[in-house]
Amino acid sequence: MTNFKYYENLSVNQEVSLEDVLHNLVFNEKQLIPAIAQQHDTGEVLMMAWMNRASIEETLKTGRVCYWSRSRQQYWRKGESSGHEQRLVSMRVDCDGDALLLLVNQTGPACHTNRRSCFYVEIGKESCTIISDKE
Amino acid sequence: MTNFKYYENLSVNQEVSLEDVLHNLVFNEKQLIPAIAQQHDTGEVLMMAWMNRASIEETLKTGRVCYWSRSRQQYWRKGESSGHEQRLVSMRVDCDGDALLLLVNQTGPACHTNRRSCFYVEIGKESCTIISDKE
Repeated sequence: MTNFKYYENLSVNQEVSLEDVLHNLVFNEKQLIPAIAQQHDTGEVLMMAWMNRASIEETLKTGRVCYWSRSRQQYWRKGESSGHEQRLVSMRVDCDGDALLLLVNQTGPACHTNRRSCFYVEIGKESCTIISDKE
Repeated sequence: MTNFKYYENLSVNQEVSLEDVLHNLVFNEKQLIPAIAQQHDTGEVLMMAWMNRASIEETLKTGRVCYWSRSRQQYWRKGESSGHEQRLVSMRVDCDGDALLLLVNQTGPACHTNRRSCFYVEIGKESCTIISDKE
């Protein structure tokens, strides 16, 4: 069994076991890890949500992003009701194993407000501004 | 006082009060909110860390990104010891107020391993791969 400290000294293209990485992920007290979704080709950060180990494994298996909804306390297969699904292009984990980055192909808007990205309010020094409209 | 539900129906360029937005941010039980750092021009997602209200206000005021270090339990002015600081270009908040996106200009590598991004391990279906080298 290896760990994230061990990965630090590996070079590009070296491989580590999927089971080791999943075992070493750092979940919070609710067994969740934050997952950032980024549109794979434009680089736009679309949203941040949460995953548990089973939703990570399902996402890897199906290629369709599945989160854990904290408000509904159930699996949230993105786009299930809206059709605005996310196909996984690449899943990455950070250096201390406590955050995921999902490169995705997002169908339609990612945000429940029908904006492309959930990050549509800019916080300025003196006031805040809406930076995108509904699609 | 407005709230995130109210912001949903606003259009691009409309403004809301900074005090309202800061008041409406959703901090966790440790009074922290996740903050994603993205290089403003290339779109690369560099890291995810945590902020409290005071570190958000300091970052807005100084233009230099200040996180809250959960491991050290103190303010973490990125680059303080390494010189690899982050200048704030734009701070954004998501539709339910529980995640921040920081567009930054990162000096040198963002990762403590000396890689540009902390997200350097790709999780594949069957194994995982190192995708970047130290700078």
